[in-house]
Amino acid sequence: MGKFFMEYKSDIEIARAAKKRPIQEIGAKLGIESDDLLPYGHDKAKVSQRLINAVQDRADGKLILVTAINPTPAGEGKTTTTVGLGDGLNAIGKKAAVCIREASLGPCFGMKGGAAGGGYAQVVPMEDMNLHFTGDFHAITSAHNLLSAMIDNHIYWGNALEIDIRRVVWRRVLDMNDRALRQITTSLGGVANGFPREAGFDITVASEVMAILCLARNLDDLQKRLGDIIVAYRRDRTPVYCRDIKADGAMTVLLKDAMQPNLVQTLENNPAFVHGGPFANIAHGCNSVTATTTALKLADYVVTEAGFGADLGAEKFMNIKCRKAGIAPSCVVVVATVRAMKMNGGVAKADLGTENVAAVEAGCANLGRHIENVKSFGVPVVVAINHFVTDTDAEVEAVKAYVATQGSEAILCKHWALGSEGTKDLATRVAQIADAGEANFAPIYPDDMSLFDKIDTIAKKIYRADGVVVDGKIREQLKAWEEQGYGNLPVCMAKTQYSFTTDPTQRGAPTGFTVPVREVRLSAGAGFIVAICGEIMTMPGLPRVPSAEQIMLNDAGEIEGLF
Amino acid sequence: MGKFFMEYKSDIEIARAAKKRPIQEIGAKLGIESDDLLPYGHDKAKVSQRLINAVQDRADGKLILVTAINPTPAGEGKTTTTVGLGDGLNAIGKKAAVCIREASLGPCFGMKGGAAGGGYAQVVPMEDMNLHFTGDFHAITSAHNLLSAMIDNHIYWGNALEIDIRRVVWRRVLDMNDRALRQITTSLGGVANGFPREAGFDITVASEVMAILCLARNLDDLQKRLGDIIVAYRRDRTPVYCRDIKADGAMTVLLKDAMQPNLVQTLENNPAFVHGGPFANIAHGCNSVTATTTALKLADYVVTEAGFGADLGAEKFMNIKCRKAGIAPSCVVVVATVRAMKMNGGVAKADLGTENVAAVEAGCANLGRHIENVKSFGVPVVVAINHFVTDTDAEVEAVKAYVATQGSEAILCKHWALGSEGTKDLATRVAQIADAGEANFAPIYPDDMSLFDKIDTIAKKIYRADGVVVDGKIREQLKAWEEQGYGNLPVCMAKTQYSFTTDPTQRGAPTGFTVPVREVRLSAGAGFIVAICGEIMTMPGLPRVPSAEQIMLNDAGEIEGLF
Repeated sequence: MGKFFMEYKSDIEIARAAKKRPIQEIGAKLGIESDDLLPYGHDKAKVSQRLINAVQDRADGKLILVTAINPTPAGEGKTTTTVGLGDGLNAIGKKAAVCIREASLGPCFGMKGGAAGGGYAQVVPMEDMNLHFTGDFHAITSAHNLLSAMIDNHIYWGNALEIDIRRVVWRRVLDMNDRALRQITTSLGGVANGFPREAGFDITVASEVMAILCLARNLDDLQKRLGDIIVAYRRDRTPVYCRDIKADGAMTVLLKDAMQPNLVQTLENNPAFVHGGPFANIAHGCNSVTATTTALKLADYVVTEAGFGADLGAEKFMNIKCRKAGIAPSCVVVVATVRAMKMNGGVAKADLGTENVAAVEAGCANLGRHIENVKSFGVPVVVAINHFVTDTDAEVEAVKAYVATQGSEAILCKHWALGSEGTKDLATRVAQIADAGEANFAPIYPDDMSLFDKIDTIAKKIYRADGVVVDGKIREQLKAWEEQGYGNLPVCMAKTQYSFTTDPTQRGAPTGFTVPVREVRLSAGAGFIVAICGEIMTMPGLPRVPSAEQIMLNDAGEIEGLF
Repeated sequence: MGKFFMEYKSDIEIARAAKKRPIQEIGAKLGIESDDLLPYGHDKAKVSQRLINAVQDRADGKLILVTAINPTPAGEGKTTTTVGLGDGLNAIGKKAAVCIREASLGPCFGMKGGAAGGGYAQVVPMEDMNLHFTGDFHAITSAHNLLSAMIDNHIYWGNALEIDIRRVVWRRVLDMNDRALRQITTSLGGVANGFPREAGFDITVASEVMAILCLARNLDDLQKRLGDIIVAYRRDRTPVYCRDIKADGAMTVLLKDAMQPNLVQTLENNPAFVHGGPFANIAHGCNSVTATTTALKLADYVVTEAGFGADLGAEKFMNIKCRKAGIAPSCVVVVATVRAMKMNGGVAKADLGTENVAAVEAGCANLGRHIENVKSFGVPVVVAINHFVTDTDAEVEAVKAYVATQGSEAILCKHWALGSEGTKDLATRVAQIADAGEANFAPIYPDDMSLFDKIDTIAKKIYRADGVVVDGKIREQLKAWEEQGYGNLPVCMAKTQYSFTTDPTQRGAPTGFTVPVREVRLSAGAGFIVAICGEIMTMPGLPRVPSAEQIMLNDAGEIEGLF
């Protein structure tokens, strides 16, 4: 088999060599008829609403979450492991599907490629997934900006709702890294163009519409949530809703197709649902509820992922997504790499190629805390060591030994080099755990806890902070929301992904710190309170030499430079 | 047959009742294999590049242009007639295809629905065509705004090209009616956000990228033209090109799929290519060259349309599109309605229901001039009288009699009510004319005429103006472009569509006027000079009560209010 050659091919070379099957064959593996697949080309399809409705009464398969230690520049391979585990489960004879997020177009032209996995654990068609794919993000951009246009149009034609133009909180979005649009003034040029005001653009993935699309259970729920969005305030601080602007119906129409999960395939021709991609800081960072719940009706095992490390992604997956969707993981896989352990242990990136067992051991504290945190949700944990060619046996053994002391098991995985052949052990163990029904999942705070206490609980139980620092104004705001009936919402923490603390340089498992909350925001449509602890960038910029300069079609009509 | 009932169904009711065939069957009518159709759902597909390449050596079918008198609020039904004629040709046993433009999303949420025809002469799926369709316009928005972001990013990182930030001419685009974005200041908020400057957004259809996509012959030509776009000027007034910003490769990648023509079907299951939709004033207003030339290789008769009245749309179709693409119409159909004749004859809209033969006769002068103009390109003309139920026999006869005095023939068409049954006469005559090879097409000015003389020629020969009024600065600008090598470009006139003059209230066939040119612009990528004669709005606004307020999904999951 070609994939055992030890000469390394690039991700794109491997993806191009993929022997893709028609998407109807992939659907058939999950019992989906051709009529229930709306094709987008020969290798992508949306699942019909009819099918989603038809399978509602079936029993759910087992849900497996893939999360990770705090990310380092060394890379952990969370998506790669999600895909590899899905292929591994299929390889050992299980009916499994993968559920991952869609990639954002904007950043592809800046520094990084997309989110389709790597090596021999990829989802294809890679190029499409990193470009327009099935148009979901474009639909979100349109729906978001329709609301923006209707708000300014309402003000233009008399402002019957008495919107305070200084307090319009609904910005505009583009799926583009464009720092020039972060802060702008609009409606210049005279009477015909409206009332000048300050405004700005975020990147599409940061839109509340994206978070809503990913949490909505169906089109009715979608429209209700869109209507609940707070778009502005009056001078008396009362909120103006999307529903007041009468944009919720048209936005739902624009999002109708985007709500349907997308089906593609792994390199090993196993089904992968790729749907939704909310920001993992100001939103919850998981793929769509529709995709996950549909996959659970169609497959016996569903492997999904959450953004960033387990302190952010897994916490939100369990406290927000699972709570809202009424789903629960049967097993959680925490991805770690020897290289990332070393970085957490204080090694510089340039020195990662040198064996350093002591640094690996020192860095394991970060992993240990994530294992403990995930267990606090009542869910069993397995550690996947995502193998790099430079890892030594002694380093791998050090991780395994450490994990054993934590009452868990670490399994070496070689999916990047070998595909499913490299994850059969992990898949076997994960399936055993899931089938044993050991999990007893519960969110770590109840709905009726006060908003402040929810923030405090996450800071203390997950980050291990001594406490939360908030000023009186923020406490008052939280109380005001509780009085307005928003007290039952979960909290979405916006914090650096690189550390348990709010300081990205604090690796490992720090203690003796507090979590300052700078600002709180109400995402009334998505249904959570965002607690912002640090700088949050909602519109990235392009680097000095954007990757766009190297992206082009080659003579064979293939895309170069995208990855 | 149900459609002969004289109770009137709305366009959307008729469209929903359509018995659509799988798009593969529609493709098969033109000899396209399934593998060469990239499906988007079951009723839309893009034609593969492989097929386009494979048919290049075939002989062309006959090209038929559908144009119209100056539009009035009464409506002429140009797209409806294009679709009806296509169906009529198929009904009389010809292998015919229709080529029309894609609809813009933004205006659908303002006042009007889309551009898919009407009554029993429609293209389906209507909803999709008026929403995201196959994503072409979203791709254009992305490509356009990537260039915008890269320009500001270049300035941010040191401005090595020495762009004068007061002279950035490349704006941003959204497919949304949003007047607040017409004139803005960007990059506010400090050092990290760049250098504040004036900027603005146009609607996507007004993008030069749209015009380029519609004129490009293939992906190489597309990239070359994108590279040729002038994005800014330096202090010394020398131009900075898209190629200098190195955005042309990535833009081509973003537009790769959008370049492939879209295939859909008429209500009678005949093939329709729906591709491209450039503004008919600051651009040339015709569907894509790729779609038209591909259709000509696949069908024996291709019916296409051009924007607005024949003074704008047909003129640009022949002087710009045909010249650039090396194609020529075999016959031109000028659409007229009794109602529009009456309005041209001075009748108010409220009185259009009352018989008024004298007003019809008075209004015919407008039609007569268009007939004469089209003939001046060496192409035979047929008039299609698009029947309305309120038309009286005497009124119809008055039009026919007038057209006969102009050496042409007017044929009554009832495609709105009857589908192809209502256009068989027109189709028979059009096929006869096209087959007879009477046409001897030539643009009305040569490439090597001076730019000023080209404008003057159009104003005198087509509009029948006494001359053109331009100030010295504009003459100098035209001369400067000639010196820079742009003298061979055609001219794209931006003028009101409601009159031969620049005054929209001057209906009929006015004389004794001049055409003031307020501004000239160079679209170096699209390959034409725009001569602006009057106010041109490149970003529409929403009305007081936008149609978006009524657009929603009904209980059956169908879209209400879009049309």
